[in-house]
Amino acid sequence: MEQFKVVMNDNEIPTQWYNIQADMPTPMKPPLHPGTGKPLGPDDLAPVFPMNLIEQEVSQERWIDIPFEVLEKYLLWRPTPLYRARNFEKLLGAPVKIYFKHEGISPAGSHKPNTAVPQAYYNKVFGIKRIATETGAGQWGSALAMACKMFDLECRVYMVRVSYEQKPYRRLMMNTWGAECIPSPSTLTNAGRNVLAAHPDSPGSLGIAISEAVEDAVTHENSRYSLGSVLNHVLMHQTIIGLEAQKQMKTLGIYPDVVIGCAGGGSNFAGIALPFARDKIHGKKVTIIGAEPASCPTMTKGPFAYDFGDLAKMTPLLPMYTLGHDFVPAPIHAGGLRYHGMAPVISHLVREKVMEARAYDQLETFDAGVKWARTEGFIPAPETNHAIAAVVDEARRAKEEGKEKVILFDWSGHGLVDLASYDAYLSGKLEAYELPDEEIQRALKAIEGLPKP
Amino acid sequence: MEQFKVVMNDNEIPTQWYNIQADMPTPMKPPLHPGTGKPLGPDDLAPVFPMNLIEQEVSQERWIDIPFEVLEKYLLWRPTPLYRARNFEKLLGAPVKIYFKHEGISPAGSHKPNTAVPQAYYNKVFGIKRIATETGAGQWGSALAMACKMFDLECRVYMVRVSYEQKPYRRLMMNTWGAECIPSPSTLTNAGRNVLAAHPDSPGSLGIAISEAVEDAVTHENSRYSLGSVLNHVLMHQTIIGLEAQKQMKTLGIYPDVVIGCAGGGSNFAGIALPFARDKIHGKKVTIIGAEPASCPTMTKGPFAYDFGDLAKMTPLLPMYTLGHDFVPAPIHAGGLRYHGMAPVISHLVREKVMEARAYDQLETFDAGVKWARTEGFIPAPETNHAIAAVVDEARRAKEEGKEKVILFDWSGHGLVDLASYDAYLSGKLEAYELPDEEIQRALKAIEGLPKP
Repeated sequence: MEQFKVVMNDNEIPTQWYNIQADMPTPMKPPLHPGTGKPLGPDDLAPVFPMNLIEQEVSQERWIDIPFEVLEKYLLWRPTPLYRARNFEKLLGAPVKIYFKHEGISPAGSHKPNTAVPQAYYNKVFGIKRIATETGAGQWGSALAMACKMFDLECRVYMVRVSYEQKPYRRLMMNTWGAECIPSPSTLTNAGRNVLAAHPDSPGSLGIAISEAVEDAVTHENSRYSLGSVLNHVLMHQTIIGLEAQKQMKTLGIYPDVVIGCAGGGSNFAGIALPFARDKIHGKKVTIIGAEPASCPTMTKGPFAYDFGDLAKMTPLLPMYTLGHDFVPAPIHAGGLRYHGMAPVISHLVREKVMEARAYDQLETFDAGVKWARTEGFIPAPETNHAIAAVVDEARRAKEEGKEKVILFDWSGHGLVDLASYDAYLSGKLEAYELPDEEIQRALKAIEGLPKP
Repeated sequence: MEQFKVVMNDNEIPTQWYNIQADMPTPMKPPLHPGTGKPLGPDDLAPVFPMNLIEQEVSQERWIDIPFEVLEKYLLWRPTPLYRARNFEKLLGAPVKIYFKHEGISPAGSHKPNTAVPQAYYNKVFGIKRIATETGAGQWGSALAMACKMFDLECRVYMVRVSYEQKPYRRLMMNTWGAECIPSPSTLTNAGRNVLAAHPDSPGSLGIAISEAVEDAVTHENSRYSLGSVLNHVLMHQTIIGLEAQKQMKTLGIYPDVVIGCAGGGSNFAGIALPFARDKIHGKKVTIIGAEPASCPTMTKGPFAYDFGDLAKMTPLLPMYTLGHDFVPAPIHAGGLRYHGMAPVISHLVREKVMEARAYDQLETFDAGVKWARTEGFIPAPETNHAIAAVVDEARRAKEEGKEKVILFDWSGHGLVDLASYDAYLSGKLEAYELPDEEIQRALKAIEGLPKP
């Protein structure tokens, strides 16, 4: 019988995260204080994050031990299986072997709990009692809700109002895990009240929700803020995906020619890619591809610049590929990829040509996702469909070149709570969309006058 | 580190199903032809099912080989992990070790694909081109849709109209897997048209949908009907769950004192229980409990009698515990458990005291399910919550008796597409409901005059 997957026992789970800071080919630019424009110090972040996470954020250590209490929670669904997609391979008829990490089997259905659990743990250890965060489509909010309940922390999630109303299932996941989910803009914060005063019917935005969550965290006792992507420590927590994949592929005696992940803020892509990026920096030959939406082409069309992480300009200035902090992506169904910037770590590695990026149109991604569901069974999240579209693209290239390739990608989550998007696709309601260059140029005006990296 | 789960490699998957017919302590009563009242022969079923499945239905062989092509599809998600619920154990604080099989990781999110895949395969091998079936809440319809696509069969699912409208996500799963999902009653069949003529606004029922699907199958070329529970061969396909659990528990050197499954038509309960029932028949000491809803207490309050499987009296007469074929259970959220009868195999084993049954109120089951989600992470389906309520009940008894117990149960599926039911529970909209005895007596009038077993 052919082998379809590699499973690992509990005692084979990696016990350290990998921190790529120790292997960066060149130093990264520092984040800057939004007020002074000077490099940010750990103390600047102390009101927002607990110090133990800030230490991780700036750490240069290559390996960071995963605390026992975090491993115990990881073991509820990790190690995730490494799958070989034999049925999808047959459909493509290309000279490729396709492997994927199945992150959809986590309780929240995505890779997000990989960082939600340690973030909740470190906050708990630091003496924090409650966490505030924001969420767009709800993947992050639901993962953090679960993690907070596991460590007995209160959790409040500001959810972009339009998603709150359109996507009740992820809100209900948060409630089931005991978190409070508030439609944003809300009347609970100054930031929310100001928006509502000017626009009583505001549908909300991720930018507004971030502002509300940060304000909430710094104005409540024993509270901190938590972010689900972009930051160094968040990406580092996700490296457990790639580290497991490396162990699993080793048991098969193979190494991938191509590593693929979908990329929004960068945490999922980093999770599968960073351990392989380390190998590449040290001389290994491997192509590492981040798949982003053509409607939000941060890495493929944005400049590398200092920019704010949010619309309200409350965050530090981060050195990253960006479309400008007031760029509003088209309302595509892959809500998790609708972010104007890209994690500084990923941005730096793309600049250094350790990684590369490709953009795919929404229609192309759903075409790939439906083909996947009909051969491999599992229905992918709209975000994951971007990675699958890149796999299809790589398979086509391999066929054209007549070259055998081993492809590894991260199947970041299932689409069972996103089925309305499949309905739109299957009933012909989705259209191809090319983002006009003028729109990008207009959006980039927002970063004029900011410091240059 | 404590162990949380036992995983198995692809090559450790069981390669045979277990058929309890070979070990029955006493012979079962035969099904009867609805017209003649005489025992049913294989030929009577030939217009409805392919002969290879009919042969399985009447087989007395103890072990049936799982075809290679079915194993290849099983391996997409099987073997499922055997989990130890350490966090839930801590919460209960009782002297119990709780193990469960995680059937929620299948692509459809439940145990249903275990029989959908072989049914699609056997139909394909027999030369059938399309399958018709019915579905209530949609678990079965979605699983069969996926299986049919895998074997390139057309699939039409008649879905009870009220569920079709209230539960769009499972319908969208069917569409994504390429099946046609028709709200029932429909204008596509005589059965449907007759209902609509009398009741244009009919919300539909499982009984009507069965009639439509059977009529559809027998009136289309190269078509057959498929059923997701109750029948012998369906239960046998599910035994892969219990067989895997036995192998996994053996690696731990333990044997359960109590085996639990939720029971609607009987297929999920059979899946975990029948391999252990075999041991019990041969002298092993083990308590086997089917957990049913208090609002549909088939085994705990119904008589053992011959009854029809459907409202329209088109099916054979089956010897089973029943509340009468026109009993309409209260609209509880565990749609998969709202069936008036119980699989003849399960019914026979309950009569023989190999198994027993307990009924739990919906409120009690959601209380157990929310506690589960908040400790173990995974959100259970409303059906699964009945099994968890039985686990809580057993743990309480163990505490009272001061006796250590090993409990094994089947975690039959996740509740991510059923979150509206959690919303109803968490917002206090669910109420306890005691089914009045008079209502049962009234419903049982439907079986007066039928042959007695």
